[in-house]
Amino acid sequence: MIFSGSSHGDLAAAIAKKMGVPLSKTQISRFACGETYARPIETVRGRDVFIIQTTTHDVNENLMELFIMLDALKRSFASKIHVVMPYYAYSRQDRVSVPREPISAKLVADLLSTAGADHVITMNLHSGQEQGFFDYPVDNLSSYGLFVDYLKKKKLKDMVIVSPDAGGAKEAKKVADEVGAGIAFIHKHRVAFNVSKAMEVIGNVKGKTCVIYDDIIDTGGSVCNAREALIKAGANKEMYLIATHPVFSDPAVQRLKDAKFKEVVVTDSVPLPKEKQFPGLKVISIAPMMAKIIENVHSDRSVSQIIK
Amino acid sequence: MIFSGSSHGDLAAAIAKKMGVPLSKTQISRFACGETYARPIETVRGRDVFIIQTTTHDVNENLMELFIMLDALKRSFASKIHVVMPYYAYSRQDRVSVPREPISAKLVADLLSTAGADHVITMNLHSGQEQGFFDYPVDNLSSYGLFVDYLKKKKLKDMVIVSPDAGGAKEAKKVADEVGAGIAFIHKHRVAFNVSKAMEVIGNVKGKTCVIYDDIIDTGGSVCNAREALIKAGANKEMYLIATHPVFSDPAVQRLKDAKFKEVVVTDSVPLPKEKQFPGLKVISIAPMMAKIIENVHSDRSVSQIIK
Amino acid sequence: MIFSGSSHGDLAAAIAKKMGVPLSKTQISRFACGETYARPIETVRGRDVFIIQTTTHDVNENLMELFIMLDALKRSFASKIHVVMPYYAYSRQDRVSVPREPISAKLVADLLSTAGADHVITMNLHSGQEQGFFDYPVDNLSSYGLFVDYLKKKKLKDMVIVSPDAGGAKEAKKVADEVGAGIAFIHKHRVAFNVSKAMEVIGNVKGKTCVIYDDIIDTGGSVCNAREALIKAGANKEMYLIATHPVFSDPAVQRLKDAKFKEVVVTDSVPLPKEKQFPGLKVISIAPMMAKIIENVHSDRSVSQIIK
Amino acid sequence: MIFSGSSHGDLAAAIAKKMGVPLSKTQISRFACGETYARPIETVRGRDVFIIQTTTHDVNENLMELFIMLDALKRSFASKIHVVMPYYAYSRQDRVSVPREPISAKLVADLLSTAGADHVITMNLHSGQEQGFFDYPVDNLSSYGLFVDYLKKKKLKDMVIVSPDAGGAKEAKKVADEVGAGIAFIHKHRVAFNVSKAMEVIGNVKGKTCVIYDDIIDTGGSVCNAREALIKAGANKEMYLIATHPVFSDPAVQRLKDAKFKEVVVTDSVPLPKEKQFPGLKVISIAPMMAKIIENVHSDRSVSQIIK
Amino acid sequence: MIFSGSSHGDLAAAIAKKMGVPLSKTQISRFACGETYARPIETVRGRDVFIIQTTTHDVNENLMELFIMLDALKRSFASKIHVVMPYYAYSRQDRVSVPREPISAKLVADLLSTAGADHVITMNLHSGQEQGFFDYPVDNLSSYGLFVDYLKKKKLKDMVIVSPDAGGAKEAKKVADEVGAGIAFIHKHRVAFNVSKAMEVIGNVKGKTCVIYDDIIDTGGSVCNAREALIKAGANKEMYLIATHPVFSDPAVQRLKDAKFKEVVVTDSVPLPKEKQFPGLKVISIAPMMAKIIENVHSDRSVSQIIK
Amino acid sequence: MIFSGSSHGDLAAAIAKKMGVPLSKTQISRFACGETYARPIETVRGRDVFIIQTTTHDVNENLMELFIMLDALKRSFASKIHVVMPYYAYSRQDRVSVPREPISAKLVADLLSTAGADHVITMNLHSGQEQGFFDYPVDNLSSYGLFVDYLKKKKLKDMVIVSPDAGGAKEAKKVADEVGAGIAFIHKHRVAFNVSKAMEVIGNVKGKTCVIYDDIIDTGGSVCNAREALIKAGANKEMYLIATHPVFSDPAVQRLKDAKFKEVVVTDSVPLPKEKQFPGLKVISIAPMMAKIIENVHSDRSVSQIIK
Repeated sequence: MIFSGSSHGDLAAAIAKKMGVPLSKTQISRFACGETYARPIETVRGRDVFIIQTTTHDVNENLMELFIMLDALKRSFASKIHVVMPYYAYSRQDRVSVPREPISAKLVADLLSTAGADHVITMNLHSGQEQGFFDYPVDNLSSYGLFVDYLKKKKLKDMVIVSPDAGGAKEAKKVADEVGAGIAFIHKHRVAFNVSKAMEVIGNVKGKTCVIYDDIIDTGGSVCNAREALIKAGANKEMYLIATHPVFSDPAVQRLKDAKFKEVVVTDSVPLPKEKQFPGLKVISIAPMMAKIIENVHSDRSVSQIIK
Repeated sequence: MIFSGSSHGDLAAAIAKKMGVPLSKTQISRFACGETYARPIETVRGRDVFIIQTTTHDVNENLMELFIMLDALKRSFASKIHVVMPYYAYSRQDRVSVPREPISAKLVADLLSTAGADHVITMNLHSGQEQGFFDYPVDNLSSYGLFVDYLKKKKLKDMVIVSPDAGGAKEAKKVADEVGAGIAFIHKHRVAFNVSKAMEVIGNVKGKTCVIYDDIIDTGGSVCNAREALIKAGANKEMYLIATHPVFSDPAVQRLKDAKFKEVVVTDSVPLPKEKQFPGLKVISIAPMMAKIIENVHSDRSVSQIIK
Repeated sequence: MIFSGSSHGDLAAAIAKKMGVPLSKTQISRFACGETYARPIETVRGRDVFIIQTTTHDVNENLMELFIMLDALKRSFASKIHVVMPYYAYSRQDRVSVPREPISAKLVADLLSTAGADHVITMNLHSGQEQGFFDYPVDNLSSYGLFVDYLKKKKLKDMVIVSPDAGGAKEAKKVADEVGAGIAFIHKHRVAFNVSKAMEVIGNVKGKTCVIYDDIIDTGGSVCNAREALIKAGANKEMYLIATHPVFSDPAVQRLKDAKFKEVVVTDSVPLPKEKQFPGLKVISIAPMMAKIIENVHSDRSVSQIIK
Repeated sequence: MIFSGSSHGDLAAAIAKKMGVPLSKTQISRFACGETYARPIETVRGRDVFIIQTTTHDVNENLMELFIMLDALKRSFASKIHVVMPYYAYSRQDRVSVPREPISAKLVADLLSTAGADHVITMNLHSGQEQGFFDYPVDNLSSYGLFVDYLKKKKLKDMVIVSPDAGGAKEAKKVADEVGAGIAFIHKHRVAFNVSKAMEVIGNVKGKTCVIYDDIIDTGGSVCNAREALIKAGANKEMYLIATHPVFSDPAVQRLKDAKFKEVVVTDSVPLPKEKQFPGLKVISIAPMMAKIIENVHSDRSVSQIIK
Repeated sequence: MIFSGSSHGDLAAAIAKKMGVPLSKTQISRFACGETYARPIETVRGRDVFIIQTTTHDVNENLMELFIMLDALKRSFASKIHVVMPYYAYSRQDRVSVPREPISAKLVADLLSTAGADHVITMNLHSGQEQGFFDYPVDNLSSYGLFVDYLKKKKLKDMVIVSPDAGGAKEAKKVADEVGAGIAFIHKHRVAFNVSKAMEVIGNVKGKTCVIYDDIIDTGGSVCNAREALIKAGANKEMYLIATHPVFSDPAVQRLKDAKFKEVVVTDSVPLPKEKQFPGLKVISIAPMMAKIIENVHSDRSVSQIIK
Repeated sequence: MIFSGSSHGDLAAAIAKKMGVPLSKTQISRFACGETYARPIETVRGRDVFIIQTTTHDVNENLMELFIMLDALKRSFASKIHVVMPYYAYSRQDRVSVPREPISAKLVADLLSTAGADHVITMNLHSGQEQGFFDYPVDNLSSYGLFVDYLKKKKLKDMVIVSPDAGGAKEAKKVADEVGAGIAFIHKHRVAFNVSKAMEVIGNVKGKTCVIYDDIIDTGGSVCNAREALIKAGANKEMYLIATHPVFSDPAVQRLKDAKFKEVVVTDSVPLPKEKQFPGLKVISIAPMMAKIIENVHSDRSVSQIIK
């Protein structure tokens, strides 16, 4: 059985359609007092249940709704409860950088378990180590294959994969090796939260076609500054931007429009309402991959062959 | 050390002032992407920590912020963490009335514990049994004493304590006995969520001064319908309304203004911004009681003598 | 597989018979030193096991025997262990009324889980909130349907459903609505434990046929005093008494005999040996309902359609 | 603070007296329906609490009362809860001898922890390995020192310490070495539960003064048969019997009277009402040792120096 | 699926062969830095997995490798993970003999569970009570049947089963009864760790053929001293030695060679490389028994009929 | 109280000396059979206990010894148990890179907790996210300050901080910013485990004095290849190497000798026996920092001010 939370109905519908099964019915509402109410309408006793809920700008609402739904499923005797959360909440708060910080990514893993989750399927966690935050099984899928396929079809000449910061250089390199491209990365200083300032380009980009490669586009500052730095360093103005999770917090959309990337390629792990779409935006759907994963999980077949 | 979440800063300030201690500093912010960030700024290692966070119309935000704050405190070696939540979130979702419902009040108790709470101090839980939802100590205070004192000072003649539904008759009776009043209650049918329709008055209210007594005023429908039913049953038009938690969801304020109660007496367990205030509204502060409780908990003195 | 503890062999036999399966064999004995010994005689490895044990006047013996049996089943690799406890032990100790009281109903839920229970099936918990005491699935069945059917067949005229205290008014109302009757309830003061004194009747019972409706008959004081109060208030002397759990502690049987109810209608959730039976006592068996529930649980079919 | 359950008030009083502190007040009662009620009457918030409850013939009642008391103490914020159970319940059910047996001694350790115990102080567990049943600290005291002192004072000639079965030979040897005696043990076949039949004597007892040494005297069969076997093997008729826990189940008292041991030496770990006392019975009180242990535990001093 | 750790590949291979299934593939290696790496190469999602790992002289390496393998299996969604550990690590550290000792046998049971074990199959635990150390199911098999069969075939005359210490007398007696032999045991004082000194023989061995019966042969001191004591007591020089676990720590092999037992009969629960073999050593394989147990566990059939 | 495991006695002694307290006594031994035995000799009841045990080439022995010591401390009523493990075991196995890999760093955190650890103090975890592997408090100290101080004193001209792989670029940058140096990093392909091959230098090192900066030196392959690549890229031959944890697995020492770094600067987080020392090796002791941390933890003072 596949249930959908209210965070990303389109994706849930696409996955269900791909699998040829209907979404199971739920009653989800919010009272005037702000409290959330959620229950499955169909019997789940003894069933293998998947619930699809990603993270949006209402991340706290998304999570609490999910916890409540999990509690209802658990109390109704679902056999196994799999949470499908393509964009994992609080993924970036994964360590204590400043004394007394929370590790919210770990906290969310624990809260999910307390509420009733037996398994989480997610995608491109901000750091691979977050798998170790889960005391129960987790599948961390990757958009890597989708993007490599996309780039291979493009057949760009003199391509360089660029990581917008030093930390991402490793991931960028993996893609570069696969598609036969060069690699570079950007030095930067963060002045304050949500503000970023790109600086020095490490690696040779002169006359090259750059593909900036990141996991999340939040406010878009890093990648747009990276773009400018690359141009200053002699890169072609025709530039690409690839990222798994299009969070697109204000003012990301305006910035990306202004930056005039040749293409901005993302997945639909996060909902993109019309007002967040713009020319040059390409959305590759994760629904086929997710559908396959769910089928394999449900029938105890290997997942690793799909996620590479 | 006393910390305040962002839900009800006025109450936290009032409690801290009453105790003669400053509120400890925290950094609480919300990123553009919707995620919450919270950390204590001062060392909490080995300290007995109280964190004050009530429930408002942003209940899910309030809870997630609290969970994150608890995680930060726990990881920073606080010795004992006491959550002070005067209006307990999801208090009314305390049983499975319809098949496959969640028991969200129990869920919240479990999530608090997972996040790091060692103890919860709350007030007038919707049902006394909810104390059993906590696998760790909980203090369920009562506004009973505050309201009884208030009513005794009023010296109303021919007073009848009225419960707006059958379930509350027991609590109403306890107050009636203490202040020497009669008792009555109202039959009602709920047509739909958030809508209520009062009906028959059980008990004698003819020519009496009625004090409607409830734990929560949400949209105000029940109590306003109760008022009409009482008037039809011959009660004095000059009527009182007492309730612990002034949730005041739309359209409660308009309804209460229209109903023209002589007085609407509530506590400040929930913040009441100016636009929710109106003539006849009396707010009794719980800050002195809370301050005393925190002092006694901190010094391992009995709490039961205060909460009666 | 269905096992029976020693508390209510007749009910277990009736359920097994209804299902057409034999009771599985156990060795249960008590040593001269007072210790209980219990083990399943047949292999339970990988099996879905139900164990039927209700609460009697030897409640503590019943519980310890059950815990020991659960330990034996768990260590013998039973796959899922379902406890069927029609009358749930310590159901009335569900909140802290006086400072420092235990919440024994919660404690029993926790001890059952520690001993090995994966699921509890019970009936008419004293309060619905007790479902939240279970950190694992619980099915709280109701005798409501059995009694409504019974009353509908009776076709009593001018019927009023009477709750013996204010707290039960809600439940009484639900029955009254279904069978088309009026409603009333009784004010009362408890002087001491196990002693009760009825007082004022709230609601109109003059010339009516009263059906006192309660969940548990313990020493019978409340309901017998209720009966007198109703007669004083003008009710017909021919009166009915309905209750789910016939605990019948001393001197309940004598009191009920003296009270001369037209009928005392109960279920067999608690064993009723001959010396506790008397003219006018009607016992409706829960065995058919329990048999159906067990079948549906075992085959992962919905339970909610049966329990209404 | 020291509380006493209802199982062995005399011992609790003796311990408290020895320590010079009063027993803390509790309300313990049993309802007509068989349910137990228990609560501390004094504040325990933040206190180090000891509760004394041993095992008697009402072992299941003793345990449930203790669990309920623990729940009340835990919910009332006791800081640390120490259970003092001189004779540990179900100590002999410590392994799976026959397939699908429970390990009740382990179960009791787990139930105590679930109910709220942080630490158990007990004495002469039936097997030393049971210490490993506790996932939390346990102190397993020994009567060894008390009995060795007693025997040394006796200055018996040609003394042989006799274990009534092969399993106890190790313990008997330890005593024999200390008091400078020989050692022997008895072969036996158990025909059925609670029935025993002694057989062959291993070791030289001819003309010796035998001291049968056991941990528990239950129905007394083993030790009385041992006595006969020893006499047949040429031992002096004037014989001694030493055992820690005088459970004295029927017909132990009659058997021991008939056997005419010179002395039957036991501790007061189990209550011995008048009807269980007889000529030749010597009771060595454990109260002084227990008092010292409690004092040392409370003040974080070493316990091992006392228990040897 | 059956996996093998690196501790005893021969046994794993023998078991798998007996069952007619191939061993599943794993990658196990040790880095230059000393860290162990282990992962299953085949998909285990939803599978019932058995992992065979016994204890050798590299017990700590064996355990850590097993924990890491369990972690990998758990994270890879194995359905149930059964650990087959014929010789259970730290079996002899099962109680606190000296103050502040660990109970390592209990610790290992807990660490296995934390790492991911759902069930342990082992053999001849040093004490039966250790079954209670497991909070999850454990099957404690016995070599008893293998040795009894062996002795019956031998048809030795005037046979006496001898326990090398008092504690083992019980087990020795069980064998003696079955094969129709006499029984004796040895008094001994341990002077220091790993050193032992046998002393007095209890029981009649004059002119008898002795079979020393022990669970573990570690350094061989006890049994060799026992041999000498028996000869002094008049036993035949042609003597047998039977033990389940041939740990054979230095200088066991030399001692056994020197002692010239007629036969030293052991199982292959522990690997015996060539340099530990010698004339007179008979190894009875446990592979057939283990194969049958695994088959029955996997198909939820009774195990107790096999292990007697 | 401060205890030392057997892995790094020198460091423990240095820390204790710095604090002016003696190391508490333990009995740690290894039996001939390979099992470890460990117990505290002094009473730890109610004490705040620190146990110092780092990771060496006998990492599995180190861990099992620590687990056993923790079990002994826990069972002996230590109040809080702090593990001081400067080089955290299995730190590099922190994610699932290849399907079905274990996350051993998380496993170790869980095993420590099961064995009894309440808190871990470690240093330079391979990734910061590993803090989230701990469900209990952890302090992750850093050698950053020690090395920055060292470099500042050196006053090297034209210094470039070089990370030997892309993943470490972030950390290298942090140091570079603080000491006013440039930054570079090396591309590399790992051909097989423990073998590495350096390749392309990213960043400008021509004529510069390079300081290779890494967290761990294992076999030394990466850093020596990095050295060659840097020289090819025009760097000064006089080069420095800095790393926190000198694991020095074979053939690291030979490689480092051959490479002729001007200086190899490490801490004593791992023991360095004489045969692993060579000209140019500088060891900065962490003992002063650790001593201060332990003092602050013990007295509930802030740790964050020390660890920067």
